[in-house]
Amino acid sequence: MNWVYIKDFKEHVGQQVTVRGWVYNKRKSGKIRFLLVRDGTGLVQSILSKAEMAPEEWEKFSDLTQESSLEITGRVREESRAPGGYELDVDSINVIQIAVDYPITPKEHGVDFLLDNRHLWLRSSRQYSIMQIRNEVIKATRDYFYENDFILIDTPLITGSIGETASTLFETKYYDFGKAYLAQTGQLYLEAACMAFGKVYCFGPSFRAEKSKTRRHLSEYWHIEGEVAFYENEDNMNMQEDYVAYLIERILDKCRHHLEKLERDISALEKVTKPFYRVSYDDTIKKLQELGSEIQWGDDLGATDETIFTEQYDKPVFVYNYPVKTKAFYMKRNPDNPETVLCSDLLAPEGYGEIIGSSQREDDYDLLLRRIREEKLPEDAYGWYLDLRKYGSVPHSGFGLGLERTITWICGLHHIRESIPFPRMLYRLYP
Amino acid sequence: MNWVYIKDFKEHVGQQVTVRGWVYNKRKSGKIRFLLVRDGTGLVQSILSKAEMAPEEWEKFSDLTQESSLEITGRVREESRAPGGYELDVDSINVIQIAVDYPITPKEHGVDFLLDNRHLWLRSSRQYSIMQIRNEVIKATRDYFYENDFILIDTPLITGSIGETASTLFETKYYDFGKAYLAQTGQLYLEAACMAFGKVYCFGPSFRAEKSKTRRHLSEYWHIEGEVAFYENEDNMNMQEDYVAYLIERILDKCRHHLEKLERDISALEKVTKPFYRVSYDDTIKKLQELGSEIQWGDDLGATDETIFTEQYDKPVFVYNYPVKTKAFYMKRNPDNPETVLCSDLLAPEGYGEIIGSSQREDDYDLLLRRIREEKLPEDAYGWYLDLRKYGSVPHSGFGLGLERTITWICGLHHIRESIPFPRMLYRLYP
Repeated sequence: MNWVYIKDFKEHVGQQVTVRGWVYNKRKSGKIRFLLVRDGTGLVQSILSKAEMAPEEWEKFSDLTQESSLEITGRVREESRAPGGYELDVDSINVIQIAVDYPITPKEHGVDFLLDNRHLWLRSSRQYSIMQIRNEVIKATRDYFYENDFILIDTPLITGSIGETASTLFETKYYDFGKAYLAQTGQLYLEAACMAFGKVYCFGPSFRAEKSKTRRHLSEYWHIEGEVAFYENEDNMNMQEDYVAYLIERILDKCRHHLEKLERDISALEKVTKPFYRVSYDDTIKKLQELGSEIQWGDDLGATDETIFTEQYDKPVFVYNYPVKTKAFYMKRNPDNPETVLCSDLLAPEGYGEIIGSSQREDDYDLLLRRIREEKLPEDAYGWYLDLRKYGSVPHSGFGLGLERTITWICGLHHIRESIPFPRMLYRLYP
Repeated sequence: MNWVYIKDFKEHVGQQVTVRGWVYNKRKSGKIRFLLVRDGTGLVQSILSKAEMAPEEWEKFSDLTQESSLEITGRVREESRAPGGYELDVDSINVIQIAVDYPITPKEHGVDFLLDNRHLWLRSSRQYSIMQIRNEVIKATRDYFYENDFILIDTPLITGSIGETASTLFETKYYDFGKAYLAQTGQLYLEAACMAFGKVYCFGPSFRAEKSKTRRHLSEYWHIEGEVAFYENEDNMNMQEDYVAYLIERILDKCRHHLEKLERDISALEKVTKPFYRVSYDDTIKKLQELGSEIQWGDDLGATDETIFTEQYDKPVFVYNYPVKTKAFYMKRNPDNPETVLCSDLLAPEGYGEIIGSSQREDDYDLLLRRIREEKLPEDAYGWYLDLRKYGSVPHSGFGLGLERTITWICGLHHIRESIPFPRMLYRLYP
């Protein structure tokens, strides 16, 4: 490679190097010109000095516009006041393309305009930092499950079984089978896999045809699901707590400068250590009523309830054992109170709300079949799922974490749409 | 946790432990009974001795069937002749569920029967080894790109743009937008992202509605795609070579026992070191004609061509610079021969054939627009893609590796269907 990345400047101090990238900004000051250049790995201030350059190189500066592509050759100099710690004293410039009328300027733009230009918006420093944090959250997740002896089982995306709620399914025609659905969850398949591998996880896209416009929903999102044979509900909460605490620790370690760029309150994240809070659904309802909510026992927590409830906490909080009718068919009945199930949701603090749904699964064949019938689910499509309760059924539990909700919380974003490179929502399919 | 995993037996030699798992097999010999138990982390031979057990525990043995679930308490003993190196001297058994008529027995079954029971088949030792190798290939990929400073950019699965070939698209209705498509590639989005982050990759499912029945195609497969700004075609080949060599080295290091279980010829994999072979399309055609193929210059390589060609090689081989008309619209015209494009396919040796497709991308606005029109693609949907050639266009290149084809080759499988937990094919949507 005959060029260097800005992030590697520390190895090239005093040397002449070539950088390839784009103009981020430029300004003049007397006989000095400043070009702020980005190359995807960092930003560097590049200094053009009329006295020290060939006139034909000096003159190229005036043509350069925001996002013009170029190759720039100069000497790397340490400069403690510069962002990144280095500057480049420019010898020559090779212009690759002059960008004409780049649409995203340093002035304010509306969010629809920015989303229409998402393919370019990703070049902006705020989006850059969010995607760097996203990259780290994902790698931390892969490392966590690998190091804790989980086997990755990629579950199918096109499926004949309905995962959660029939009302929010995307459909596709699948050859001669007729309708198939885009998966809402890999959980049912993970249940099969945990009987083969003990501890399993999947991490892929999930789809929800959400017809409402909220700041917490995407039509396509990434879903991290874990499932462990012989885990009961409390083991399940312990595992989630350990994983989420690991994520936060890793981001604080590796991405502090990106959190600072986003003006995230880092002290709030530093409080996220084990143990998290655990509050029963019953107590949650009482607390919400005290806080002025009109929620009644038996209702699911709405977005506003989640917000006012989690504003009370400085760490994530598990709400456990919800009423049967608020939850999916596969959850195990609570032996101590059959009106509730052995489940928990993990709510992020500071008003962010649900990031994980989880439960112990019904492991009794007859009870599960009864629930499938009650929900009027197509029994044929669930034959294989029922098999798991016939051939060596065991207690087992698992969870599903919404990646983008977690990133929204970690980054302190107002809306989930900035947490994914190319969001898909009710009114958004482009770019 | 009040039980231990079989893989951790080395830490419990001489201790009494409890294992939770399933009966894999059993047999008798005089006053000794042998239970082979699996728990997802390993297999252990468990010894029941009539003389040393309570009679009621001893009698449980006779009821146990294949895949019955149980909790078994005993003492861990080192035994160099045992697979795994340890045995368990059983004190007591707690039966969780007796499995009645488990469908997959040690006898031979037809592949359709096994695929119908894929949710159970994963418990078999051969499938277990393939999935362990798959898990390692995926983690190795994540590690490779992370350590080489690529940023993961998850590209959308539901999209308005057609990636490769309109004839093999799955469709879905997307709210009021009408038709949308399931992505065949994330490449176009990665091209946008590499202008923001320099080096990017994505790793998610891709979809092809392949109406033919072959042993190399899945309708849903996992796709690893990399894209780097300022890379030309040769940099691109170097990057792929480095990545694939890394994968093989890692599998040889971490999964040798699984390769042995699969009876893979390990010496063939040991030959896969850098550099790989590089043969122009022109020379490939000549060589194929010498080998008896009827292929003519201008034709794409068929599956049979790939097989007979790669049987000649002991390492992967790049075939580069194919004719324009065999390849997708976005590939850059070869300046030295405008009838060809700057591209390469990487073919795995031993007859396995294509695992990677790659190219340098057309970076000229006018030439790209002309190709989009020639292919009669919907210009509107590609507006954002054309923008990338307007605002600081740069040379860039990338590749796409089919995960399951790579696993098929590494594991030495006859058919791609065993390389993914729940395959989706022309005749397969269940389980």
